[in-house]
Formats: sequence, C-alpha cells, structure tokens
Amino acid sequence: MEITQITVLEDVELNNPVFIEALPGIGHVGKLAADHMIDEFNATKFAEIYSPSFPPQVFVGEEGLIENMINELYYVKNVGEDNLDIIILVGNTQALSPEGQYGVCQDILNFVKGKGASKIFTLGGMATGQPVEESKIFGAATDEENIELLKEAEVEIRSNDGGIVGASGLFLGLGLRQEMNGICLMGQTPGYFIDAQSAEAILNKLAVLLNFEIDTDKLEERAEETKEMLAKAQQMEQDIINKANASSSDDLRYIG
Amino acid sequence: MEITQITVLEDVELNNPVFIEALPGIGHVGKLAADHMIDEFNATKFAEIYSPSFPPQVFVGEEGLIENMINELYYVKNVGEDNLDIIILVGNTQALSPEGQYGVCQDILNFVKGKGASKIFTLGGMATGQPVEESKIFGAATDEENIELLKEAEVEIRSNDGGIVGASGLFLGLGLRQEMNGICLMGQTPGYFIDAQSAEAILNKLAVLLNFEIDTDKLEERAEETKEMLAKAQQMEQDIINKANASSSDDLRYIG
Amino acid sequence: MEITQITVLEDVELNNPVFIEALPGIGHVGKLAADHMIDEFNATKFAEIYSPSFPPQVFVGEEGLIENMINELYYVKNVGEDNLDIIILVGNTQALSPEGQYGVCQDILNFVKGKGASKIFTLGGMATGQPVEESKIFGAATDEENIELLKEAEVEIRSNDGGIVGASGLFLGLGLRQEMNGICLMGQTPGYFIDAQSAEAILNKLAVLLNFEIDTDKLEERAEETKEMLAKAQQMEQDIINKANASSSDDLRYIG
Amino acid sequence: MEITQITVLEDVELNNPVFIEALPGIGHVGKLAADHMIDEFNATKFAEIYSPSFPPQVFVGEEGLIENMINELYYVKNVGEDNLDIIILVGNTQALSPEGQYGVCQDILNFVKGKGASKIFTLGGMATGQPVEESKIFGAATDEENIELLKEAEVEIRSNDGGIVGASGLFLGLGLRQEMNGICLMGQTPGYFIDAQSAEAILNKLAVLLNFEIDTDKLEERAEETKEMLAKAQQMEQDIINKANASSSDDLRYIG
Repeated sequence: MEITQITVLEDVELNNPVFIEALPGIGHVGKLAADHMIDEFNATKFAEIYSPSFPPQVFVGEEGLIENMINELYYVKNVGEDNLDIIILVGNTQALSPEGQYGVCQDILNFVKGKGASKIFTLGGMATGQPVEESKIFGAATDEENIELLKEAEVEIRSNDGGIVGASGLFLGLGLRQEMNGICLMGQTPGYFIDAQSAEAILNKLAVLLNFEIDTDKLEERAEETKEMLAKAQQMEQDIINKANASSSDDLRYIG
Repeated sequence: MEITQITVLEDVELNNPVFIEALPGIGHVGKLAADHMIDEFNATKFAEIYSPSFPPQVFVGEEGLIENMINELYYVKNVGEDNLDIIILVGNTQALSPEGQYGVCQDILNFVKGKGASKIFTLGGMATGQPVEESKIFGAATDEENIELLKEAEVEIRSNDGGIVGASGLFLGLGLRQEMNGICLMGQTPGYFIDAQSAEAILNKLAVLLNFEIDTDKLEERAEETKEMLAKAQQMEQDIINKANASSSDDLRYIG
Repeated sequence: MEITQITVLEDVELNNPVFIEALPGIGHVGKLAADHMIDEFNATKFAEIYSPSFPPQVFVGEEGLIENMINELYYVKNVGEDNLDIIILVGNTQALSPEGQYGVCQDILNFVKGKGASKIFTLGGMATGQPVEESKIFGAATDEENIELLKEAEVEIRSNDGGIVGASGLFLGLGLRQEMNGICLMGQTPGYFIDAQSAEAILNKLAVLLNFEIDTDKLEERAEETKEMLAKAQQMEQDIINKANASSSDDLRYIG
Repeated sequence: MEITQITVLEDVELNNPVFIEALPGIGHVGKLAADHMIDEFNATKFAEIYSPSFPPQVFVGEEGLIENMINELYYVKNVGEDNLDIIILVGNTQALSPEGQYGVCQDILNFVKGKGASKIFTLGGMATGQPVEESKIFGAATDEENIELLKEAEVEIRSNDGGIVGASGLFLGLGLRQEMNGICLMGQTPGYFIDAQSAEAILNKLAVLLNFEIDTDKLEERAEETKEMLAKAQQMEQDIINKANASSSDDLRYIG
C-alpha cells in the first residue's frame, strides 16, 4: 500500500478526451460544478483511486454507511457540438503531504494520458473572504494559445498573481512538463460556504470553452444538499479537534 | 526497521474470528472496553506489533520499568452462545503520520485476514465536549446488513455525520476494499477524562451484537487506575511541552 | 517521480567552475543578487530541476502563464580577470521537508561536482528585524583558508553564531563531507521586504572574492519589479490561508 | 543519501562495552555530562554519523567555521575499578521526524551492538519549569535488575510517570526488543538554561553505577562556555523565526 492504487472498472476507449480536475477545495466550487456535470451528462465511473497519502479516515455517509477517502474518474462521450469525450476527476479528498500530492497527481495524469488526454482543465475556487456580488471567473493557462481562448470566453486573466496550491495547480504544472496543455478556471467565492453561484459561473465559462450546453437549474438544490451534509460533518470534526486538544489523550502527542 | 514488525508469539488456529480494534483514542472508551474484555475472557496475547511510525518514545510504567510503544493482538475462543472466536487489537499508541497509519492498519488487517477474520468491529469515543447524562452509543457500518444489526441492537445510527479519524475509521475503510465488512461503535463521552461509563455502554452493545455476556463490575475500578496513571503522565508531558517551547534547546528547531 | 529530476538542456564543458547557490530566502537577497548576475553576464540556462519535495503548487506569472516550482542551473564562462567559469543555482522554491532538502541539495551537488565544481558560494540574507542603515555582509566558511579570504575582502566573520538553515547552509555542509570547500555570504537585511541594497552589498563582496566587475545600476529597478510581483502574490496567498482556516472546507483536515 | 551514514574512523576492538547515549535535549544535561566525560577520560572519536533526517542546516562554530549536523561515537577503555570499556554517543542534533528517529537510533544501536555492547545508559534532563534547589536524579530501566541497581545508587525511581521522548527513550525501547538492557538517568532541571549542576549530579550517579571516579571541577566552566555559545545561537535563530513569520518570503509556504 505504498503507492497510488488505480482500480479500473471499465476499460473504456476514448477519443482524444479533455481531462477535467475538480477535487475538493475552496468553497467546493470545482467539486460542485463537476458533480453537476457528471449528473447532467450521465457520466460513467470507470476508475477508483486510493492513496496512503489521503487522510487516514473515513466519512460516514447516508444511512450510516462508511465511505472511503477516494478519487474517482468518470467519462462521458460525444458532449456538445464538437462531440467531445471528457474525463472528470472528482473525489472527497486530496493527498495531505507535498510528496503525496505529487505522487497521486502524477499517477493520475499518467493514467489519463494513457487514455489519450492531452488537454487539462482544472476547476477551483478563489477566496475573497467577503461577500461576492457576482461571481467572476478568473483564469490562468499553460500557454498563450489557451490564454487567448480564455480571453475570447471573457474570463479574467490573473497575471503575476500568486500561486495555485494543490491539485488544481499541480496537474497543470506536471502537464507542462510532458507536453500537455491546459487551463485553470477559478471562481470567485467568499470561501466559507458551498457556493452554487460560483459553480454555476464556472460551468457557464466551461460550456463556452468546450462548446456544450448544460442545464444549471438543479445546481442550487445540489448546493443546498451538500451544504447540509457538510455543515454537520464540520461541526462534528471541529468539536473533535477542540476536544482532542483539550482532552487527556496523550497517546498521539509528540514533542521531538 | 522500515515497515510494520509483527512478532508472532503463538501460531494459533482460529475459527472465522471476529476482529475487534480498540486502540487509544478519545476518552479511552474503546481501549478501556477492550482491556476489560481481555481480562474477563482471559484472552491470550499472540502477536506484538511495532512500527517506526509510532511516536519515537517509550512510557515509564509500573516500578520504573520501560514500555515500548506497541500494538498487541489477543485471541479468545468460544465466546458466548455462538462459540465465537475473537481477535482483539489493543495498544498504547497509533501511528503518527497518515502514511504510517495506512501502513500499520493495512499490515495488521492482512495478518488477521490470514487468521480467517472477515468481520471487523472498531470501538471508539465520540466527544461531546460537555457532561453526558447517559452515554449513548452511535454506530456506522460498511453495509446495510450491518446497519440493520445495529438498529436491532438499538444503536443510534450516525448519518451524513462527519468522519471517523484514525484506526477506528481506517480499518473499516481498508476492509471495505477487500471484501471484509464491519461496524464502528462510538461511545458518547465528554472526551476529557477516562470514561468508564461510556466503555460499559459500548461493551453492553457489543455483547448484544456478538451474543455474549460480560461482567462489567470491575470496569469502574479499572477506569480509576487508568485515570491515575494517565493523569501523571499527561501532566508531565504537558510540562515538557511547555518547557520545550519556552526552553533554550535549539537543537530540534527547523525553520525551512 | 520519487527523486530529484535534473533535465539537462546543454551538455556544457566547464573549466573548474565555481558553484554559486542563491535559492529564495530571507529578503530575497541571494536570489536578487544571482538573478542580476545572470542578466549582466548573460548566463545560459543548462539544466532544470524538479522535485516532489517542492511545494505542491504552481505560480501564476506574466500574462496568466503558469510556472512550475523549479530550480535552475545557469553557466557563464571566462568571468573577470581570472577567466572564471561559474555555475549559478537559482529558482522559485526550496524543498519543504528535511529529507527533501537533503535529497535535492545532494543531487544538485553531485551534478555540479560532475561538471568539475569544487568550490561553493552560497548567498543569503540575515534578518535583523529592524531597519538597516548600511547592509553589512557576514561570512562563514568550511575551512580556515576561506575564512582568510573573507577577512581580506573585509567580510565580517560570524563566530559561534547560530545556524544557517536551508540550502545556503546545507550545500556547504554536504560539500564539507566530500572534499568541496566554500563560503556563505549573508547580507544583513530587515527581512520583510525585497532588499536591493543588501543584494548590491553581497554582489560587491562576491566581485572582490571572485575578482570580477559587475554593474549594479539596474539592481534597484529589478528589486522594484520583484517587489511588485511578490506583493500581489503574498497578499493573495495570505488571503487564501486566512480563508482556508476560517472556511468550511473540511477535506484536508486531519486530527490523528 | 536516504539512510543513516556511519563513517568509521577507527576499527576499534572493545571488550563488552557499555553504551552511553547523551544527545542534546532538555537543559543540555546529558550532553554536558557526556562532553565532560569525553574530555576527562580523553576518549577517542571512532565514528561519525549523518542522516537526511537531521535538520537541514549547519551551525557556525568557532572562527566562522561551518559544522555539520552530526552524531559522534567516542570510545574509552579500562575506565574505573572494573576496567570498563565505554562507547559514548554525543552530537549536536537528533533526527526530526518519528521515522527518522527510529531509523537513526536503530542503525546506531546495530552498530554498537556489533562492537559488543549489550548494556545501554541514556542521559537526559527532566524539566521542572521552576528553579531547582538541588538537582535530583530520576531513573527508569528496562528490567528489575537494573531498577535494583538504581535503588542501590539512591536514584529516585519514576513509576507510571509519563514518557521519555526522543533518543533517550528510544534507545532503551529498541534495546528491549533485541535483548539489550539499560537505564535512563534523568537530571531534574529548570530546563531553560544549560544546567551544570544537574549534569554534575547525573555524572555522580553514573560514577556510582559504573564504578569510576571523575573530576567535575571543570564542569561549571564548560557549562559557562556552552551557555555563551548557545545563547547567541538561540537569539539569532529566534530572530530568524520571528522574521520568517512576519516576512514577505512566500516561497516556503504551503496551504494544502
């Protein structure tokens, strides 16, 4: 159990697919957008990914059923006017350590490259820390051609503007090093709640860039559900953290 | 010394044993319950487990004798009306790093699977952070059949309710991935003291689920002893931490 | 992707080159000085270095273009009156973990040793935490001969004076263990802004030690640009950190 | 550079030597005592130990000369009335990570076991956090026989009394697992300065236990020197830490 484990559920053939990454992050903007795409396009899960670099825990889901920390790959064929094949990466976690992040992202990238992917989209949130009137979408890219596409889609270009931390940045960086190109779309969001508005804005830009149409009516509803689920989970986790800090459990402490 | 070391003390043959995990955690609920089972059922230690991912320290026990960080496996045969064989995992620590947790849990799981175990029970505490009138037991499980068993035993089902962090969660998650099923029992506890009441409540539910009887009279007494022992240990460790932070020891600092 | 990746762009032959390390650190003193040398001497990039121990992120640079975390080696031939060959190590990051730092530095050192380097200069800043009237340059070295050279160049010798943390220290320590000698030059700097004055002072001492001349007119201008670029990046990163801490994203938390 | 590197300087033959560990820790009690022994007994360094788990830094020592993070083994023959051979482990650091601690300690233990060592003494400080009238020595041991020896030497036995963190604990724990026995001596110390009084007290007990005589006249003087040296180092390191936290260096930050 020392490396990324990719369990292939279906050995699908895809035609030059676009790879979309949307692992959980700020405001769950990317994840919410991607989960919605999977539903609307009726995408098929074809691989499950586990890593010992994921947090050592499980989630308690619907009806008390235990869920592993996992990343998942879905595919959908013939999307939009360009009959585009798409691979979507979603999940409930990212690797914890820097080395773990590099390892998991590189292994996934190798896998989707093996499926023919050469273009990467990563979806994330950009925290403003204050209420957002209208969620603006910012973009960055691996090359000038993609920057042009962003400008045509009226995405705001970030320039000399800090870092993109985690999978949304790393996939593009690793792609750059093996002749894959790509775009990062970041939805402005207050950052402290599940942001359906920002997810909708990001989906609309993605629809322009990839030339498809998507119904976003149910997105608000989905956001509500996610919100309820997470609210409980967070409350409890925060409680555990507070207790653990105050508690008499000395077993996991380490002082060097 | 790079991997989990399992020292087998007795090459015991077991008949489809149930595997019970009770490593130290919140309120020492699981540990206390399991230690009590080991005593009452006169269980036999048959394996010792060491890992370089355990905290790099030792404990000073009775009479000044040094104790290693360790996990231990006990077995007991023909328990209760179903003549059940049981493997119990106890210890004084869990691995520190995420990768360490995955490694140790997976290695132990492989070992007990090799002994025929296919069902997992994990015992833990669930911190409330405030006094608890009557310790309620919450449950989660890997599958619907086990959820039904929990309901029959009048265990409260957690639903969409956060995570289970550490070994109690991870064993079930790893089990799920290799056709083992299981249940996590969590005893409500304030979390900041050794909670005999919660351990008793968890044992009572376990007795129903596994169809055995267990005398819990001495549990309170055991809790008192554990309390005294830990109180000293914690006080000292906290002192060391405070001192280390304030102290002039610059040898272990690192600023990147 | 488990080890340092050194991509060689040009298989250059060098004549007993001096190796100068100037990765980012306090006040960007070393980095600023080295970037200026590369420009003024029109140095050529001949290798790129990646590591899974670098931070798992990318930077957004000019015009929205994504830049990998990277270390880079430049060479320049026949510098100054001694016709000195020089290798310069610059980059936008250092490895995060202790083991990563050792791994990356050792691998780079082996590589430049293979190019004939036997003498090491490391450039860094030394934080005063308060305004600095005139940036003094401090030095340390692997041996007495180099200490003498520092004294001749009127560099202030640090004695029994703490540690040098990160690549600037480690390259000299690792060098010591394989018969390479060297000098660390540290420019006094307040530490909380890009310090062109300190970089100029360090360059002037380096020019004396290596017997070359360098025009520092454009250094102030370069510092201004760096300042603007970093200011934005930091502001944003700090915002993200603040938000992440306050936010409802529970996916990356871990409590043991 | 992935494992502990032990450079043997002299292939000495020793007669059933006692192994004494005194790496830096609280109040530098053990280190001070061991450095004094090395001087008084004119011990000979016979091995140097490096590890990529040590902090990635160097120290600036006398006259600006750079010193590696290092552990060192000394030997001395025919000490005291029992003509005892002794191996002493000293150094300026311990490994940082748990896994690193286990790795380094195990490798050193294997090495000294290969030299015939079967008994271990570890020397450390025990922080009180407040002024200490007379430095009491506390002890713990791997077995009852050694506890008896401690009692005869009028060492206070710690019982059910917390943990021993780091090398002083780990060597005994690892020893326990391979038929080596040993004793930990802990000198009570305020913990926030170099404590010559506590080091003297620990040496006096060690002299009783190992049946030798040692002149402690120069210990106070040595403590003064160490104090001066460390005071500067700490001050500076603390300054760097403060600056680094407040500074504009965003290169080494990571937010997941």
